[in-house]
Amino acid sequence: MADSPRVLVLNGPNLNMLGKREPEVYGHTTLADVDARCASVGESLGLAVTCRQSNHEGELVGWIQEAREQQDGLVINAGAYTHTSLALHDALRASDLPVVEVHLSNIHRREDFRRHSYVALAAVGMICGLGPLGYELALQALAERFRSAAAGTP
Amino acid sequence: MADSPRVLVLNGPNLNMLGKREPEVYGHTTLADVDARCASVGESLGLAVTCRQSNHEGELVGWIQEAREQQDGLVINAGAYTHTSLALHDALRASDLPVVEVHLSNIHRREDFRRHSYVALAAVGMICGLGPLGYELALQALAERFRSAAAGTP
Amino acid sequence: MADSPRVLVLNGPNLNMLGKREPEVYGHTTLADVDARCASVGESLGLAVTCRQSNHEGELVGWIQEAREQQDGLVINAGAYTHTSLALHDALRASDLPVVEVHLSNIHRREDFRRHSYVALAAVGMICGLGPLGYELALQALAERFRSAAAGTP
Amino acid sequence: MADSPRVLVLNGPNLNMLGKREPEVYGHTTLADVDARCASVGESLGLAVTCRQSNHEGELVGWIQEAREQQDGLVINAGAYTHTSLALHDALRASDLPVVEVHLSNIHRREDFRRHSYVALAAVGMICGLGPLGYELALQALAERFRSAAAGTP
Amino acid sequence: MADSPRVLVLNGPNLNMLGKREPEVYGHTTLADVDARCASVGESLGLAVTCRQSNHEGELVGWIQEAREQQDGLVINAGAYTHTSLALHDALRASDLPVVEVHLSNIHRREDFRRHSYVALAAVGMICGLGPLGYELALQALAERFRSAAAGTP
Amino acid sequence: MADSPRVLVLNGPNLNMLGKREPEVYGHTTLADVDARCASVGESLGLAVTCRQSNHEGELVGWIQEAREQQDGLVINAGAYTHTSLALHDALRASDLPVVEVHLSNIHRREDFRRHSYVALAAVGMICGLGPLGYELALQALAERFRSAAAGTP
Amino acid sequence: MADSPRVLVLNGPNLNMLGKREPEVYGHTTLADVDARCASVGESLGLAVTCRQSNHEGELVGWIQEAREQQDGLVINAGAYTHTSLALHDALRASDLPVVEVHLSNIHRREDFRRHSYVALAAVGMICGLGPLGYELALQALAERFRSAAAGTP
Amino acid sequence: MADSPRVLVLNGPNLNMLGKREPEVYGHTTLADVDARCASVGESLGLAVTCRQSNHEGELVGWIQEAREQQDGLVINAGAYTHTSLALHDALRASDLPVVEVHLSNIHRREDFRRHSYVALAAVGMICGLGPLGYELALQALAERFRSAAAGTP
Amino acid sequence: MADSPRVLVLNGPNLNMLGKREPEVYGHTTLADVDARCASVGESLGLAVTCRQSNHEGELVGWIQEAREQQDGLVINAGAYTHTSLALHDALRASDLPVVEVHLSNIHRREDFRRHSYVALAAVGMICGLGPLGYELALQALAERFRSAAAGTP
Amino acid sequence: MADSPRVLVLNGPNLNMLGKREPEVYGHTTLADVDARCASVGESLGLAVTCRQSNHEGELVGWIQEAREQQDGLVINAGAYTHTSLALHDALRASDLPVVEVHLSNIHRREDFRRHSYVALAAVGMICGLGPLGYELALQALAERFRSAAAGTP
Amino acid sequence: MADSPRVLVLNGPNLNMLGKREPEVYGHTTLADVDARCASVGESLGLAVTCRQSNHEGELVGWIQEAREQQDGLVINAGAYTHTSLALHDALRASDLPVVEVHLSNIHRREDFRRHSYVALAAVGMICGLGPLGYELALQALAERFRSAAAGTP
Amino acid sequence: MADSPRVLVLNGPNLNMLGKREPEVYGHTTLADVDARCASVGESLGLAVTCRQSNHEGELVGWIQEAREQQDGLVINAGAYTHTSLALHDALRASDLPVVEVHLSNIHRREDFRRHSYVALAAVGMICGLGPLGYELALQALAERFRSAAAGTP
Repeated sequence: MADSPRVLVLNGPNLNMLGKREPEVYGHTTLADVDARCASVGESLGLAVTCRQSNHEGELVGWIQEAREQQDGLVINAGAYTHTSLALHDALRASDLPVVEVHLSNIHRREDFRRHSYVALAAVGMICGLGPLGYELALQALAERFRSAAAGTP
Repeated sequence: MADSPRVLVLNGPNLNMLGKREPEVYGHTTLADVDARCASVGESLGLAVTCRQSNHEGELVGWIQEAREQQDGLVINAGAYTHTSLALHDALRASDLPVVEVHLSNIHRREDFRRHSYVALAAVGMICGLGPLGYELALQALAERFRSAAAGTP
Repeated sequence: MADSPRVLVLNGPNLNMLGKREPEVYGHTTLADVDARCASVGESLGLAVTCRQSNHEGELVGWIQEAREQQDGLVINAGAYTHTSLALHDALRASDLPVVEVHLSNIHRREDFRRHSYVALAAVGMICGLGPLGYELALQALAERFRSAAAGTP
Repeated sequence: MADSPRVLVLNGPNLNMLGKREPEVYGHTTLADVDARCASVGESLGLAVTCRQSNHEGELVGWIQEAREQQDGLVINAGAYTHTSLALHDALRASDLPVVEVHLSNIHRREDFRRHSYVALAAVGMICGLGPLGYELALQALAERFRSAAAGTP
Repeated sequence: MADSPRVLVLNGPNLNMLGKREPEVYGHTTLADVDARCASVGESLGLAVTCRQSNHEGELVGWIQEAREQQDGLVINAGAYTHTSLALHDALRASDLPVVEVHLSNIHRREDFRRHSYVALAAVGMICGLGPLGYELALQALAERFRSAAAGTP
Repeated sequence: MADSPRVLVLNGPNLNMLGKREPEVYGHTTLADVDARCASVGESLGLAVTCRQSNHEGELVGWIQEAREQQDGLVINAGAYTHTSLALHDALRASDLPVVEVHLSNIHRREDFRRHSYVALAAVGMICGLGPLGYELALQALAERFRSAAAGTP
Repeated sequence: MADSPRVLVLNGPNLNMLGKREPEVYGHTTLADVDARCASVGESLGLAVTCRQSNHEGELVGWIQEAREQQDGLVINAGAYTHTSLALHDALRASDLPVVEVHLSNIHRREDFRRHSYVALAAVGMICGLGPLGYELALQALAERFRSAAAGTP
Repeated sequence: MADSPRVLVLNGPNLNMLGKREPEVYGHTTLADVDARCASVGESLGLAVTCRQSNHEGELVGWIQEAREQQDGLVINAGAYTHTSLALHDALRASDLPVVEVHLSNIHRREDFRRHSYVALAAVGMICGLGPLGYELALQALAERFRSAAAGTP
Repeated sequence: MADSPRVLVLNGPNLNMLGKREPEVYGHTTLADVDARCASVGESLGLAVTCRQSNHEGELVGWIQEAREQQDGLVINAGAYTHTSLALHDALRASDLPVVEVHLSNIHRREDFRRHSYVALAAVGMICGLGPLGYELALQALAERFRSAAAGTP
Repeated sequence: MADSPRVLVLNGPNLNMLGKREPEVYGHTTLADVDARCASVGESLGLAVTCRQSNHEGELVGWIQEAREQQDGLVINAGAYTHTSLALHDALRASDLPVVEVHLSNIHRREDFRRHSYVALAAVGMICGLGPLGYELALQALAERFRSAAAGTP
Repeated sequence: MADSPRVLVLNGPNLNMLGKREPEVYGHTTLADVDARCASVGESLGLAVTCRQSNHEGELVGWIQEAREQQDGLVINAGAYTHTSLALHDALRASDLPVVEVHLSNIHRREDFRRHSYVALAAVGMICGLGPLGYELALQALAERFRSAAAGTP
Repeated sequence: MADSPRVLVLNGPNLNMLGKREPEVYGHTTLADVDARCASVGESLGLAVTCRQSNHEGELVGWIQEAREQQDGLVINAGAYTHTSLALHDALRASDLPVVEVHLSNIHRREDFRRHSYVALAAVGMICGLGPLGYELALQALAERFRSAAAGTP
């Protein structure tokens, strides 16, 4: 892991609608705002951050497969696929990367079918309900993890 | 909603096989027949109807997202994704459009896994078991809805 | 099936309260309005429509039994009995008539105990969530069915 | 229990359709045939048999309540109410009469919702799947029971 | 609500057997005793009390529909229909009246199928397990409610 | 089916304890009594009855396999294997014989694990709760069946 | 039970917040108000009433154990422990005292996890949904019970 | 089916990672190895084998639709879509081709969510837990099937 | 594992009826045919194959226990015991032998109670739905496994 | 119960493999060791101990039936039959003997299907997880029981 | 573990009522009797036994935390907390001590909610249904365990 | 909210064992380390942080009740009470404070009984699986929230 650790920030279906879709649930920040904020926070944390969004399960699976060789960590808000995509789960497990799962809303307080997360079964941890700030905290968590690993601290 | 209200008729996976696949369940009408009939019925109802079909969950999600600005209503037969795609559900909810769900067969009389509908949770109503006629009735329901709204009738 | 096909429109418990009961859910149209509209739409479709309502499960069962010989089709909104009456289901199955089920609201979006329909298991199709218009669409579906049958179209 | 023991044979909803409804499941014998056969078999067994049928849950409940004082035993085929009527169950339990439950078809091999019997929870025994003969066997069982009781045999 | 507030005390199936049916569970008081006691307690509380009992679900539904205009409150012991009648529930909700549910026995300690109450979902409160006294306490609760409402106390 | 139709009466595990085991549930009649009674009733019905009992699932399976060629009908009280032995069920189905299931007690009123019957899924009908008389009634049912078949009555 | 029967009114966790916590659900009356009202009503009923509240499951258990010797009856609103504390249930059963359970709101209409009551399994009866009046009615029920017992009436 | 029967070998999401992903579960063979082996085994069995892999549910659906006209049989390892894709199931059923399902690991011994297979409901048979050899055995099974069909053996 | 690896082919209850029992499900091949085919295929694969069948769970358990020392691998079609016998499962696990499970029909498409396999939890893999050919494929899988082990290939 | 009370120690399927089967779970002691230890401990406790093992459910049932007359108590480790054999349960209940259930491992911490015990429903108590020592403690428990009974202590 | 191994005997809620509470279930022995017996048996086994009881979940958790450093083994009858306290379970697991669980009654034969044990998931073994003797047997089991450990026997 | 916003950091049962208990799951940091880190991070964020831990459900409930008036926000790791304490949930809801839930491990990947969180139902968001860093991120989330609120940003 030479130079800056690389982190892929992945957003799933309908997150491109952020700021337009049900703002009373998801707020007014757009995905572009989130991406910009991730880049800037990443920079301040010494991370090389890349952001991507797709509505296609297969495309997300492909990006995670590539990340295996090209990235050092993953922040993922898989949207609805969180709850239905075993394929994403398998890709995350196969990636051997530390994954931090993010959700804008607190999925534990919504419909029953949003309580189970396939992503969580392949992730180090989850941050939910804290809005766009969740992405920043996830980047901090990865940065901290890279720092400990570099320092040989378990 | 100037001029003719615009309605997108969306068909999901395997509906392009209509007329070929299990005709004893789904009949002999092809999807092209359905599309033609929707166009003609739409015209007689004063609706501008567009028809699309995809086997890709992500593509369907994308079309629904675009419909948010470009259409006034949605008729959707999501096929198998009816029962498995939370992403479609989220897209439909985010579209803020009136949605009428159509199924060719009566899904309440088939396998257990066809009884739950994610689409229904985001739809005004459902028409099922009436074959291709269901699309026409759905267009009527939307037309009626546009007429009442225009007339200020709740 | 000489002359006009005969259709019985059956309404179950509490539908006599239509227009009074929870109008935010069921609207302001009364059952008399619905019956009048069914008669007029039926006429324009060449159907001889009879409308009946009862709060008694046993009376509804009896009417369906009589319909077996006296009617050519059934439109039924069984209200609460939709979800609890196996006796209605058995009567409908025994009637050997084509049945179209109607619900004013979208039963798939309400309480859990309204999701299962015994009527659906004995019906050709279901129309729900489209308000009183649902009855008209159901009559159209039956008319279409009689027309195809008469024309020898499967 | 002077003279002939009195037995009420009660039939529930849709059993008046016997011989007409789904003969491949229920056979061609009519309810009148069954009643006649019960009367004649009852006579040969020394029982005073009365037969009644109703589609009304409440009417069946009322007859069972009256039977408490006017009858010595009950044979009941409650049809669909077998599976849904707790009120029948309570009436049977309150009657303090020996009850033998009859079903024409083997309810254990049909739809899931026909497997549970509220009647069974208040009955001495059940005979099912043996067609109209089931009523005769039920009368034999009650006759045998009255004989033992009269003989002081437990 | 001029003069005395009017309260309908409704009893469901088999409660006409009170005092005869399973006295070890339900006690020796008859329904006539209960009605008399309700009338007298009602009088002392300034309530105009009417008492009715039926074994017919449809008849109970009808009485509740009428109560909507003719009564100011409802006390109901729906017996077995408590647990099976969604139609009663709908009628109670449609009545827009304050409803207090009564059960003679503690339904939470009996068979599993007596634990769920459709009536409770439409009632202000429930009193159970306190025998016939429950009706009197229910009348008190309604009287108190009318008094607060009259006094403008929330 | 020349001469007398042959019927095998099969008893499963612990039925050899009949008369000794929990007499308050199963009565005082012994299995020898039952066998004797079956033989005598069989004779009067023109049936050639053979009785067997085993505690071994495999032995019961074997006897049912042999019955396929050597018997014309089966009466079976499979005891505890009723509820746990899919192997018995498969053997009964493979036998192509009419099977009448008997239980001494009413299995619908006992522990939950006695409510499901694998035997019922392969049987024409069931008689339960009528004590040893059940075997006699089962023999009558088979005799009647053979008579109808011989008479060409469906 | 010399002199006035003694009754312990027990309140569980968060009921000390009464009047402050979610007043739209629980109203504006404070626990002190409730206690005062119980004392005064108790006096008028000839009962010696003691009131206690604790947030500690173990303390409530201890008080119930002491009540066994020091009290003649119990009124308990166990708050959240109603639904989670088997220890309370065991203590109540061990107390051998008549227990009347009270809830301010109708627990049957709230979250699923509030529908099961461990307290109910050890209580004579329940009063719920009637607000603070419920405590008074519960005291009446106990007073009535003591009166009947004193009078030797079952 | 002139000349060599044609078989499509289809691999689903993440199977392109074979040999890289969790080798302790899936072994070291790559997908290219599997494809090569299928081609060579196919040749020796007289089958024209085509191999394809996709991470996209919609693409897999499309290929199966095409196979309907262009292939004589299907071998499919749908990976995670096995357990979540009803769309694949519908496509397979619509294809009217014999399908043999393959899994590298024994799905019956893994996580609960891998135990249900939508593919199995549309397949002739399944081979699992035998690693890459499973594909070869599946090809043998299809070859055998084509041979029997050609020979007119059922 | 000197000389030819030894393989025990075990068949469970009712498989001795193969060819007689429900041929539309299980085909016309007899168990003797299967055994002969296994012997001949085994020979060609260099395996010493022994075939046994029993209807007795305990006997099958005993044979598996002996196999532990006398065999190198197991092919087992446990018939109905697949789904009910934990004892077989324990014996298989205790045997420390590689086990390949075979079913003639595709158990995933039959009754619910045939979907769970205790054998699968102790087996390397499963082959189902391919008829008698399944045994041959299972022998190939074991032969391949012995070959790899002999070659030191993992 | 003259002289030494007699105790039968019964072991079920696969316990003859003790010491060989999965020693990391079940330890290295053989069944012969256990039997010897039971005999010697029994002697020191004044009990006449007999030990038996079978893999056959029917044989175990038979031994329990005989024990009814020939023994004074039972210690049973039914192995896998603990969880699947209702026949054993019925035999134990019919034996009218005090039964102490033993398991070598703590069945509450193993697979879900080992958590339910049919034996427990017919046993005085259970000792599990304490290895072979469990048999000795079970014998002590029976000895203590016989002593109390002899001393007339409840 | 110099000198005598130290064992803490912990009793949970309501066990201080032993001998008073439901003696037909729990017997007449008091907790003081149990403690005295444990001390004396402990002495004879060379164990230093301390006994404690609390109705407070938090206090029990604290004692278990202290035991980690001050004791060598634990005997625990957690009463109702057995079934509801995950906190106790976590404390037991964190203690790294061998734990033997005791219950006076056979929890497998009581109410459903007493069948699951959180304690069992952190315990070596369980003894239940043997009354106060269970504590003595548990102490023997721990003593035996210490002896083996001291002797270096696994 | 004058001066520094006040935040209470609450830790539940067994968290005082942090660093000692199962370090492979929870790491080597002690609770004192966490408290110190929270204080220092809080200071840098302009928050007045107070830290408390208790093993007593009732004490935690009491502290949350006090926090209602004395604090501006809550960070809570309720340990095992997360999953079992409805009383904590009620207290949190009654507090009207923003609550951020923290867990050291990813509760979604552990035992089933740790997946449901009563705390989550009353919390703004959750951070889990990120070890002690989770507390710091939670403080940041609250600080951010206070900042937005102060700035009038929704």
